[in-house]
Amino acid sequence: MPISGKQLIAGKWLEGRSGTFNGVNPATGEDLEPQFTCADEFQVAEAVSAASECFTAFANTTPQQRADFLNACADEIMALGDELLERVSAETGYPRGRAEGERGRTCGQLRLFADWIVDGEYLDARIDTAMPERQPLPRPDLRSFNQALGPVAVFGASNFPLAFSVAGGDTAAAFAAGCPVIVKGHNSHPGTSELVAQAIDKAVQKCGLPGGVFSLIMGAGKTVGAALVQAPGIKAVGFTGSTAGGTALFKLANERPEPIPVFAEMGSINPVVLLPEALKNSAESIAAGFVGSLTLGTGQFCVNPGLVLAVEGDGLEQFIAATGEALAKVGAGVMLNKNTRQGYQSGVAKLRDQAGVEQVAAGEAAGEDGGFTCQAGLLTVCAKDFLANRELQEEVFGPMSLVVKCRDRAELLQAIQSLQGQLTGTLQCSESELASYGDLVELLRQRVGRIVVNGFPTGVEVCHSMMHGGPFPAATDARFTSVGTMSIARFVRPICFQNYPQSLLPDALKDSNPLEIPRLVNGEKSRAAL
Amino acid sequence: MPISGKQLIAGKWLEGRSGTFNGVNPATGEDLEPQFTCADEFQVAEAVSAASECFTAFANTTPQQRADFLNACADEIMALGDELLERVSAETGYPRGRAEGERGRTCGQLRLFADWIVDGEYLDARIDTAMPERQPLPRPDLRSFNQALGPVAVFGASNFPLAFSVAGGDTAAAFAAGCPVIVKGHNSHPGTSELVAQAIDKAVQKCGLPGGVFSLIMGAGKTVGAALVQAPGIKAVGFTGSTAGGTALFKLANERPEPIPVFAEMGSINPVVLLPEALKNSAESIAAGFVGSLTLGTGQFCVNPGLVLAVEGDGLEQFIAATGEALAKVGAGVMLNKNTRQGYQSGVAKLRDQAGVEQVAAGEAAGEDGGFTCQAGLLTVCAKDFLANRELQEEVFGPMSLVVKCRDRAELLQAIQSLQGQLTGTLQCSESELASYGDLVELLRQRVGRIVVNGFPTGVEVCHSMMHGGPFPAATDARFTSVGTMSIARFVRPICFQNYPQSLLPDALKDSNPLEIPRLVNGEKSRAAL
Repeated sequence: MPISGKQLIAGKWLEGRSGTFNGVNPATGEDLEPQFTCADEFQVAEAVSAASECFTAFANTTPQQRADFLNACADEIMALGDELLERVSAETGYPRGRAEGERGRTCGQLRLFADWIVDGEYLDARIDTAMPERQPLPRPDLRSFNQALGPVAVFGASNFPLAFSVAGGDTAAAFAAGCPVIVKGHNSHPGTSELVAQAIDKAVQKCGLPGGVFSLIMGAGKTVGAALVQAPGIKAVGFTGSTAGGTALFKLANERPEPIPVFAEMGSINPVVLLPEALKNSAESIAAGFVGSLTLGTGQFCVNPGLVLAVEGDGLEQFIAATGEALAKVGAGVMLNKNTRQGYQSGVAKLRDQAGVEQVAAGEAAGEDGGFTCQAGLLTVCAKDFLANRELQEEVFGPMSLVVKCRDRAELLQAIQSLQGQLTGTLQCSESELASYGDLVELLRQRVGRIVVNGFPTGVEVCHSMMHGGPFPAATDARFTSVGTMSIARFVRPICFQNYPQSLLPDALKDSNPLEIPRLVNGEKSRAAL
Repeated sequence: MPISGKQLIAGKWLEGRSGTFNGVNPATGEDLEPQFTCADEFQVAEAVSAASECFTAFANTTPQQRADFLNACADEIMALGDELLERVSAETGYPRGRAEGERGRTCGQLRLFADWIVDGEYLDARIDTAMPERQPLPRPDLRSFNQALGPVAVFGASNFPLAFSVAGGDTAAAFAAGCPVIVKGHNSHPGTSELVAQAIDKAVQKCGLPGGVFSLIMGAGKTVGAALVQAPGIKAVGFTGSTAGGTALFKLANERPEPIPVFAEMGSINPVVLLPEALKNSAESIAAGFVGSLTLGTGQFCVNPGLVLAVEGDGLEQFIAATGEALAKVGAGVMLNKNTRQGYQSGVAKLRDQAGVEQVAAGEAAGEDGGFTCQAGLLTVCAKDFLANRELQEEVFGPMSLVVKCRDRAELLQAIQSLQGQLTGTLQCSESELASYGDLVELLRQRVGRIVVNGFPTGVEVCHSMMHGGPFPAATDARFTSVGTMSIARFVRPICFQNYPQSLLPDALKDSNPLEIPRLVNGEKSRAAL
């Protein structure tokens, strides 16, 4: 089916009733065909009501049925073939390799979650058997497991048109949990969004699921997005994007008559700490790796290294010089859209205006030919000025980083202590100096979701142990991640059955353990039947 | 040490600087000695700062060290002996048996958590080993586990002076996780609070922990409590109490510059659904059990059955009659304090004033002798009136329940569909009719944290599978529980280590698995070393 510009509402492709817009090719600034329609609030309500209606049916599918569905989504996304890759590139400016890589990541994620839910560990099934003879009171039979939370609203991110968008991590996690999903597609890649929605729609049909399991809504964030988060039928929100956007949704969700959890993965400047020995021994190779991480995807990653912290000295000067040389060879990258470029330019201008900030390196200047290109760069500031100015901790989304020069170790500690919550914290160090910087590591650990040693923060592996989140404002709740199998926990809640008849218990809790899942039986983990 | 009336701030007993108050014996309405002092905001800040300072040290203790501490707390509480039991009874009106039972529950909880954290499952340790040869990109070594969230503020509940107060479930869970705790003691049982704080203080010293690990603050909820939740050093809140109190703290916490998670376990009317066959076969024995549950602890349980739903008919009339007979023999129970009694009386008066509500049974009338006694009772209303009036769903804390008479099964379903979130939902039914009421059970499942079959909601077992929480307004986040070992999850967050040197990894993540805990290694659960 060619891209229609329509909404997908519970299995039906419908014209939006609230205006139109076009995708834009960021490399040229030109409109892409076809035109897209915007949903109105009634269409949002329709999607939510369909999701609520089919919630129980979807929540009660077996893990295997949901796994089949997740795999079918991956199959159908692959079946879109070149059309999808071309549309991704046209809408984002990403080279085909990136589009292909991200497609692989997206489908791999769906398939990993499929395997994982069949394993059943995520259900956290627990059985405490009855003790009818216990004194002074008998213990009843108690059994609990994780059930789906309810319909989930997902907000696609601009910078991952596949992996954090329509069939991205949030959607995969919600489907895995058994929650219907309504995606508010990002206006920056509407064609990509529709193509992926077509694939999910096919998977829904192939698996015989109700249409309400998935809807794609396009439109203005402030009206459609707000209506979605405020709809009583929505029970959780997944969001990846700016701090302003995430905190606005968080506020809306908390102010509902029935507040609901929002997992918003938001801003981060991802500090990279360069310790003295590492700088002394390998300033140049660190600089090479750093520039690669800083300019990857034109710096449009939430784990982009926007801050470098080190004690001043020859090593740091060498790092800055090498970074400058490498940056000078970096072409003007294409940013995702006009707003992103504008945000980058004004963010950089604001940073440059702050007391003590100096620009020490730059890449190729941005072009003037209509495409949304931008110039990479490096800034420096002394720790004293950094400590005095919270604005230097504001994320500038794009390939710009700020080096904080500290007088000594004490000032370096102070600078780390001043940091807000972050997705990641990186240490470049020798093993022996890492051991001797325990105090610094502790400060960093309290402020981040992931610690990277002798690497760079970009490259967020989808696996069991990934933590992609962190203390506010990295995310709205540091106890959850939006990447990896742990992310399913955002969309489930435990329910307990007391003295429930065997034959009517959910399969996960039956004595016979028909799902063959691991369960905690009277405190011991086992896959055995009772 | 006799009860001093002082604050315990990080190991020091200090006079509060913001006024005084006395405990009150609810059986007589008379003041209890000694006088207690109230903390001011600076003392709150002092406690928070001490907690923040020792956070890393406490968070990095081994599970065994924290288990020893939890056990020491239990030992020291037991060592308080009769003085504690007497003070509990004097401050709450609870008979000695209840005080003793609750002490057992409290210490059992501490010891269960001690065993559980040493087992290590709660750490959710995960290891994904490096794949240096993987194409197109190598996979780094990634390892994650749950670390302590930060200092936790705990608000003691009035109705569980031990089990949900100073060393209650929230405190035990936070200590288990490695979080320092600051308790805002409930003014209704200040002497009990202080005695338990003395016990914890001794355990802190015995275990060589820093004093900042625990503080007890007494004072006015609106100033001291708000100051505590707003303190930047506090990273999570545990609360058990009213919907008004819980939502106020939730709001404060969300409006902080850095929002923090609040787990507030709040109101619930705990619907009990009586299905026709059960009513037909055992209306009288159900009534007996129901009255026992309704009047237990003078109805002062968050799981008190405040609502009964059934289809009208002979069976229901028989149930109401039998309940009335049993209630007539129920003495006027002593409520916890003046406010609780006042809230109960005005709540009952308001309920009685609602359209269609009739009082059909009552216990002994409340006395006029200065003690805070109250009269149990039963009200009825037809489903039509119930469905038209949300105020009939407001919790009235105490031994009063409302029977909703439904015309037929459809109206019963409608009434259940109209319910807000609840801690529990109870079904009295035969097994065969439970099977035939699948639609009703699904509606209930979506609205509660725990389903009880042929029992009553009171009696919340402390075990692995207990879920004590539920959709709002039962709790502020349906994904967590405040009872049982799952409750520790409220106070931990995952942290991920990427390419971290073996020797410096936390013990939970070292190849050699020195803690011998279960870990998810490349997707397989195992206690083996790598």
